[in-house]
Amino acid sequence: MQIRQATAADFDTIWPIFAEIVRAGETYAYPRDCDKAEAQRLWMERPRQTYVAELNSQIVGTYYLKTNQAGPGDHVCNCGYMVASSARGQGVASALCQHSLREARRFGYRAMQFNFVAATNEGAVRLWQKLGFEIVGRLPKAFNHPVKGYVDALVMYQWLGD
Amino acid sequence: MQIRQATAADFDTIWPIFAEIVRAGETYAYPRDCDKAEAQRLWMERPRQTYVAELNSQIVGTYYLKTNQAGPGDHVCNCGYMVASSARGQGVASALCQHSLREARRFGYRAMQFNFVAATNEGAVRLWQKLGFEIVGRLPKAFNHPVKGYVDALVMYQWLGD
Repeated sequence: MQIRQATAADFDTIWPIFAEIVRAGETYAYPRDCDKAEAQRLWMERPRQTYVAELNSQIVGTYYLKTNQAGPGDHVCNCGYMVASSARGQGVASALCQHSLREARRFGYRAMQFNFVAATNEGAVRLWQKLGFEIVGRLPKAFNHPVKGYVDALVMYQWLGD
Repeated sequence: MQIRQATAADFDTIWPIFAEIVRAGETYAYPRDCDKAEAQRLWMERPRQTYVAELNSQIVGTYYLKTNQAGPGDHVCNCGYMVASSARGQGVASALCQHSLREARRFGYRAMQFNFVAATNEGAVRLWQKLGFEIVGRLPKAFNHPVKGYVDALVMYQWLGD
Protein backbone atom coordinates (compact mmCIF):
# COMPACT_ATOMS: atom_id res chain seq x y z
CA MET A 1 0.00 0.00 0.00
CA GLN A 2 1.26 3.45 -0.89
CA ILE A 3 0.06 6.53 1.00
CA ARG A 4 0.68 9.91 -0.61
CA GLN A 5 -0.59 13.48 -0.57
CA ALA A 6 -3.83 13.89 -2.51
CA THR A 7 -4.03 16.18 -5.52
CA ALA A 8 -7.15 18.09 -6.57
CA ALA A 9 -7.52 15.60 -9.46
CA ASP A 10 -7.84 12.74 -6.96
CA PHE A 11 -11.15 14.06 -5.72
CA ASP A 12 -13.09 12.42 -8.57
CA THR A 13 -11.98 9.08 -7.10
CA ILE A 14 -12.37 10.14 -3.46
CA TRP A 15 -15.91 11.43 -3.99
CA PRO A 16 -17.70 8.03 -4.37
CA ILE A 17 -15.95 6.81 -1.18
CA PHE A 18 -16.93 10.00 0.68
CA ALA A 19 -20.50 9.96 -0.67
CA GLU A 20 -21.17 6.34 0.34
CA ILE A 21 -19.96 6.93 3.89
CA VAL A 22 -21.63 10.31 4.43
CA ARG A 23 -24.96 9.24 2.88
CA ALA A 24 -25.05 6.33 5.35
CA GLY A 25 -24.91 8.91 8.19
CA GLU A 26 -23.47 6.46 10.70
CA THR A 27 -20.02 7.94 11.29
CA TYR A 28 -19.35 11.46 10.04
CA ALA A 29 -20.68 14.81 11.19
CA TYR A 30 -21.23 16.07 7.67
CA PRO A 31 -24.63 16.81 6.14
CA ARG A 32 -25.91 13.52 4.68
CA ASP A 33 -26.99 15.31 1.49
CA CYS A 34 -23.62 17.03 1.08
CA ASP A 35 -22.89 17.58 -2.64
CA LYS A 36 -19.58 17.06 -4.41
CA ALA A 37 -18.44 20.71 -4.31
CA GLU A 38 -19.15 20.98 -0.58
CA ALA A 39 -17.44 17.62 0.02
CA GLN A 40 -14.34 18.83 -1.81
CA ARG A 41 -14.28 21.95 0.35
CA LEU A 42 -14.66 19.92 3.57
CA TRP A 43 -12.23 17.12 2.71
CA MET A 44 -9.61 18.77 0.48
CA GLU A 45 -9.60 22.52 1.01
CA ARG A 46 -10.33 23.22 4.66
CA PRO A 47 -7.85 20.68 6.11
CA ARG A 48 -4.15 21.38 6.27
CA GLN A 49 -3.39 18.31 4.16
CA THR A 50 -5.26 15.39 2.56
CA TYR A 51 -3.82 11.98 1.68
CA VAL A 52 -4.84 8.91 -0.31
CA ALA A 53 -3.91 5.26 0.06
CA GLU A 54 -3.40 3.25 -3.12
CA LEU A 55 -3.49 -0.54 -3.53
CA ASN A 56 -2.51 -1.77 -7.01
CA SER A 57 -2.66 1.86 -8.23
CA GLN A 58 -6.29 2.19 -7.07
CA ILE A 59 -7.35 4.70 -4.42
CA VAL A 60 -8.91 2.67 -1.59
CA GLY A 61 -8.76 5.14 1.29
CA THR A 62 -8.18 8.75 2.26
CA TYR A 63 -7.64 10.94 5.28
CA TYR A 64 -7.28 14.60 6.16
CA LEU A 65 -5.17 16.25 8.83
CA LYS A 66 -5.94 19.67 10.30
CA THR A 67 -5.35 21.84 13.35
CA ASN A 68 -8.16 21.10 15.79
CA GLN A 69 -8.38 24.44 17.62
CA ALA A 70 -6.70 27.79 16.91
CA GLY A 71 -4.54 29.83 19.27
CA PRO A 72 -4.00 28.09 22.63
CA GLY A 73 -5.20 24.81 21.09
CA ASP A 74 -3.10 24.81 17.93
CA HIS A 75 -0.65 22.14 19.11
CA VAL A 76 -3.42 19.51 18.78
CA CYS A 77 -4.43 18.16 15.38
CA ASN A 78 -7.48 16.29 14.16
CA CYS A 79 -7.84 13.65 11.43
CA GLY A 80 -10.65 11.85 9.65
CA TYR A 81 -10.29 8.59 7.71
CA MET A 82 -12.37 6.90 5.03
CA VAL A 83 -11.93 3.49 3.42
CA ALA A 84 -13.78 2.28 0.31
CA SER A 85 -16.30 -0.44 1.20
CA SER A 86 -14.62 -2.72 -1.37
CA ALA A 87 -11.31 -2.49 0.52
CA ARG A 88 -12.42 -3.06 4.12
CA GLY A 89 -10.72 -5.68 6.29
CA GLN A 90 -7.30 -5.18 4.69
CA GLY A 91 -5.77 -2.91 7.28
CA VAL A 92 -6.25 0.28 5.29
CA ALA A 93 -7.68 2.31 8.19
CA SER A 94 -4.89 1.17 10.46
CA ALA A 95 -2.24 2.10 7.87
CA LEU A 96 -3.86 5.50 7.32
CA CYS A 97 -3.98 6.23 11.04
CA GLN A 98 -0.37 5.19 11.62
CA HIS A 99 0.68 7.37 8.68
CA SER A 100 -1.28 10.29 10.12
CA LEU A 101 0.45 9.94 13.50
CA ARG A 102 3.83 10.20 11.76
CA GLU A 103 2.68 13.18 9.69
CA ALA A 104 1.31 14.89 12.81
CA ARG A 105 4.70 14.58 14.53
CA ARG A 106 6.44 15.81 11.39
CA PHE A 107 4.21 18.93 11.42
CA GLY A 108 5.13 19.46 15.08
CA TYR A 109 1.77 18.68 16.68
CA ARG A 110 1.85 17.46 20.30
CA ALA A 111 -1.42 15.57 20.30
CA MET A 112 -4.18 14.20 18.07
CA GLN A 113 -7.87 14.40 18.91
CA PHE A 114 -11.00 12.83 17.42
CA ASN A 115 -13.91 15.05 18.39
CA PHE A 116 -16.93 13.01 17.49
CA VAL A 117 -16.66 9.22 17.23
CA ALA A 118 -20.10 7.56 17.26
CA ALA A 119 -20.05 5.11 20.16
CA THR A 120 -21.86 2.63 17.88
CA ASN A 121 -18.81 2.59 15.57
CA GLU A 122 -17.23 -0.10 17.73
CA GLY A 123 -14.71 -1.34 15.21
CA ALA A 124 -13.25 2.15 14.83
CA VAL A 125 -13.19 2.73 18.60
CA ARG A 126 -11.27 -0.53 19.15
CA LEU A 127 -8.84 0.27 16.34
CA TRP A 128 -8.08 3.77 17.65
CA GLN A 129 -7.54 2.33 21.12
CA LYS A 130 -5.14 -0.26 19.69
CA LEU A 131 -3.27 2.60 18.01
CA GLY A 132 -2.83 4.51 21.26
CA PHE A 133 -5.93 6.67 21.60
CA GLU A 134 -7.85 6.96 24.83
CA ILE A 135 -11.50 7.77 25.32
CA VAL A 136 -11.33 11.11 27.16
CA GLY A 137 -14.94 12.18 26.79
CA ARG A 138 -18.44 10.89 26.22
CA LEU A 139 -21.13 13.22 24.82
CA PRO A 140 -24.54 11.86 25.80
CA LYS A 141 -26.86 11.38 22.82
CA ALA A 142 -24.81 13.79 20.70
CA PHE A 143 -24.89 11.58 17.58
CA ASN A 144 -28.17 11.09 15.73
CA HIS A 145 -27.78 7.64 14.19
CA PRO A 146 -30.12 6.88 11.24
CA VAL A 147 -31.14 3.50 12.70
CA LYS A 148 -30.33 3.64 16.42
CA GLY A 149 -31.43 7.21 17.09
CA TYR A 150 -29.54 9.39 19.57
CA VAL A 151 -26.36 7.58 20.63
CA ASP A 152 -23.33 8.83 22.54
CA ALA A 153 -20.34 10.31 20.76
CA LEU A 154 -16.83 9.77 22.09
CA VAL A 155 -13.89 12.13 22.24
CA MET A 156 -10.61 10.25 21.71
CA TYR A 157 -7.14 11.64 22.28
CA GLN A 158 -3.49 10.73 22.03
CA TRP A 159 -0.55 12.74 23.32
CA LEU A 160 2.31 12.49 20.84
CA GLY A 161 5.17 13.50 23.12
CA ASP A 162 6.96 16.74 23.88
CA MET B 1 -29.87 44.19 31.89
CA GLN B 2 -31.19 43.89 28.35
CA ILE B 3 -30.01 41.11 26.04
CA ARG B 4 -30.73 41.50 22.33
CA GLN B 5 -29.50 40.32 18.94
CA ALA B 6 -26.32 42.06 17.86
CA THR B 7 -26.22 44.15 14.70
CA ALA B 8 -23.14 44.57 12.48
CA ALA B 9 -22.79 48.10 13.87
CA ASP B 10 -22.37 46.69 17.41
CA PHE B 11 -19.07 45.14 16.49
CA ASP B 12 -17.16 48.40 17.07
CA THR B 13 -18.19 48.09 20.72
CA ILE B 14 -17.74 44.32 20.90
CA TRP B 15 -14.23 44.44 19.44
CA PRO B 16 -12.41 45.93 22.48
CA ILE B 17 -14.05 43.31 24.74
CA PHE B 18 -13.09 40.53 22.30
CA ALA B 19 -9.54 41.86 21.83
CA GLU B 20 -8.78 42.11 25.55
CA ILE B 21 -9.93 38.55 26.20
CA VAL B 22 -8.32 36.95 23.14
CA ARG B 23 -4.99 38.82 23.57
CA ALA B 24 -4.79 37.45 27.12
CA GLY B 25 -4.92 33.92 25.64
CA GLU B 26 -6.26 32.34 28.80
CA THR B 27 -9.71 31.25 27.69
CA TYR B 28 -10.47 31.25 23.95
CA ALA B 29 -9.14 29.06 21.15
CA TYR B 30 -8.71 31.99 18.80
CA PRO B 31 -5.34 33.24 17.52
CA ARG B 32 -4.07 35.71 20.11
CA ASP B 33 -3.07 38.16 17.34
CA CYS B 34 -6.48 37.93 15.67
CA ASP B 35 -7.29 41.25 13.93
CA LYS B 36 -10.63 43.04 13.92
CA ALA B 37 -11.82 41.73 10.52
CA GLU B 38 -11.03 38.13 11.48
CA ALA B 39 -12.69 38.64 14.88
CA GLN B 40 -15.83 39.92 13.20
CA ARG B 41 -15.89 36.84 10.97
CA LEU B 42 -15.44 34.50 13.94
CA TRP B 43 -17.84 36.18 16.34
CA MET B 44 -20.53 37.72 14.11
CA GLU B 45 -20.57 35.97 10.74
CA ARG B 46 -19.78 32.30 11.27
CA PRO B 47 -22.19 31.73 14.19
CA ARG B 48 -25.90 31.29 13.67
CA GLN B 49 -26.64 34.29 15.89
CA THR B 50 -24.78 36.79 18.07
CA TYR B 51 -26.19 38.72 21.04
CA VAL B 52 -25.18 41.63 23.26
CA ALA B 53 -26.03 42.49 26.85
CA GLU B 54 -26.59 46.13 27.72
CA LEU B 55 -26.47 47.77 31.14
CA ASN B 56 -27.51 51.44 31.19
CA SER B 57 -27.42 51.40 27.35
CA GLN B 58 -23.78 50.24 27.36
CA ILE B 59 -22.70 46.93 25.82
CA VAL B 60 -21.06 44.96 28.64
CA GLY B 61 -21.16 41.43 27.27
CA THR B 62 -21.77 39.33 24.20
CA TYR B 63 -22.28 35.75 23.13
CA TYR B 64 -22.68 33.69 19.97
CA LEU B 65 -24.75 30.58 19.33
CA LYS B 66 -23.99 28.09 16.57
CA THR B 67 -24.55 24.48 15.53
CA ASN B 68 -21.68 22.46 16.97
CA GLN B 69 -21.46 19.65 14.40
CA ALA B 70 -23.20 19.19 11.06
CA GLY B 71 -25.34 16.25 9.95
CA PRO B 72 -25.79 13.64 12.71
CA GLY B 73 -24.56 16.21 15.28
CA ASP B 74 -26.72 19.15 14.29
CA HIS B 75 -29.11 18.87 17.24
CA VAL B 76 -26.32 20.10 19.56
CA CYS B 77 -25.36 23.76 19.71
CA ASN B 78 -22.32 25.58 21.00
CA CYS B 79 -22.00 29.03 22.59
CA GLY B 80 -19.19 31.35 23.63
CA TYR B 81 -19.55 34.25 26.09
CA MET B 82 -17.51 37.38 26.75
CA VAL B 83 -17.93 40.01 29.46
CA ALA B 84 -16.14 43.37 29.53
CA SER B 85 -13.55 43.46 32.33
CA SER B 86 -15.25 46.61 33.68
CA ALA B 87 -18.52 44.69 34.15
CA ARG B 88 -17.32 41.52 35.85
CA GLY B 89 -18.93 40.31 39.06
CA GLN B 90 -22.39 41.59 38.17
CA GLY B 91 -23.90 38.36 36.92
CA VAL B 92 -23.52 39.21 33.23
CA ALA B 93 -22.05 35.81 32.23
CA SER B 94 -24.78 34.01 34.11
CA ALA B 95 -27.50 36.10 32.45
CA LEU B 96 -25.94 35.53 29.01
CA CYS B 97 -25.76 31.77 29.53
CA GLN B 98 -29.33 31.52 30.80
CA HIS B 99 -30.48 33.57 27.80
CA SER B 100 -28.53 31.26 25.46
CA LEU B 101 -30.17 28.16 26.94
CA ARG B 102 -33.59 29.68 26.20
CA GLU B 103 -32.54 30.65 22.67
CA ALA B 104 -31.11 27.17 22.06
CA ARG B 105 -34.45 25.60 22.99
CA ARG B 106 -36.28 28.13 20.83
CA PHE B 107 -34.11 27.11 17.83
CA GLY B 108 -34.96 23.46 18.58
CA TYR B 109 -31.54 22.25 19.77
CA ARG B 110 -31.54 19.24 22.09
CA ALA B 111 -28.22 19.92 23.82
CA MET B 112 -25.52 22.53 24.33
CA GLN B 113 -21.81 21.71 24.33
CA PHE B 114 -18.70 23.69 25.27
CA ASN B 115 -15.79 22.07 23.43
CA PHE B 116 -12.77 23.66 25.00
CA VAL B 117 -12.98 25.16 28.50
CA ALA B 118 -9.51 25.73 30.00
CA ALA B 119 -9.45 23.79 33.28
CA THR B 120 -7.66 26.80 34.82
CA ASN B 121 -10.75 28.93 34.15
CA GLU B 122 -12.25 27.76 37.44
CA GLY B 123 -14.80 30.51 37.84
CA ALA B 124 -16.32 29.69 34.46
CA VAL B 125 -16.32 25.94 35.14
CA ARG B 126 -18.17 26.48 38.43
CA LEU B 127 -20.66 28.83 36.81
CA TRP B 128 -21.44 26.42 33.96
CA GLN B 129 -21.90 23.61 36.48
CA LYS B 130 -24.27 25.78 38.48
CA LEU B 131 -26.24 26.40 35.28
CA GLY B 132 -26.65 22.68 34.57
CA PHE B 133 -23.57 21.70 32.56
CA GLU B 134 -21.58 18.57 33.33
CA ILE B 135 -17.93 17.92 32.62
CA VAL B 136 -18.13 15.07 30.09
CA GLY B 137 -14.54 15.12 28.87
CA ARG B 138 -11.02 16.15 29.83
CA LEU B 139 -8.41 16.75 27.11
CA PRO B 140 -4.96 16.32 28.66
CA LYS B 141 -2.69 19.32 28.08
CA ALA B 142 -4.81 20.49 25.14
CA PHE B 143 -4.77 24.16 26.20
CA ASN B 144 -1.52 26.12 25.98
CA HIS B 145 -1.89 28.72 28.75
CA PRO B 146 0.39 31.78 28.46
CA VAL B 147 1.49 31.54 32.10
CA LYS B 148 0.78 27.96 33.21
CA GLY B 149 1.84 26.15 30.03
CA TYR B 150 -0.05 23.08 28.83
CA VAL B 151 -3.17 22.63 30.94
CA ASP B 152 -6.18 20.35 30.46
CA ALA B 153 -9.23 21.50 28.55
CA LEU B 154 -12.71 20.38 29.56
CA VAL B 155 -15.68 19.42 27.45
CA MET B 156 -18.94 20.49 29.11
CA TYR B 157 -22.41 19.44 28.08
CA GLN B 158 -26.06 19.91 28.93
CA TRP B 159 -29.00 17.99 27.51
CA LEU B 160 -31.92 20.37 26.99
CA GLY B 161 -34.72 17.85 26.86
CA ASP B 162 -36.58 16.05 24.09
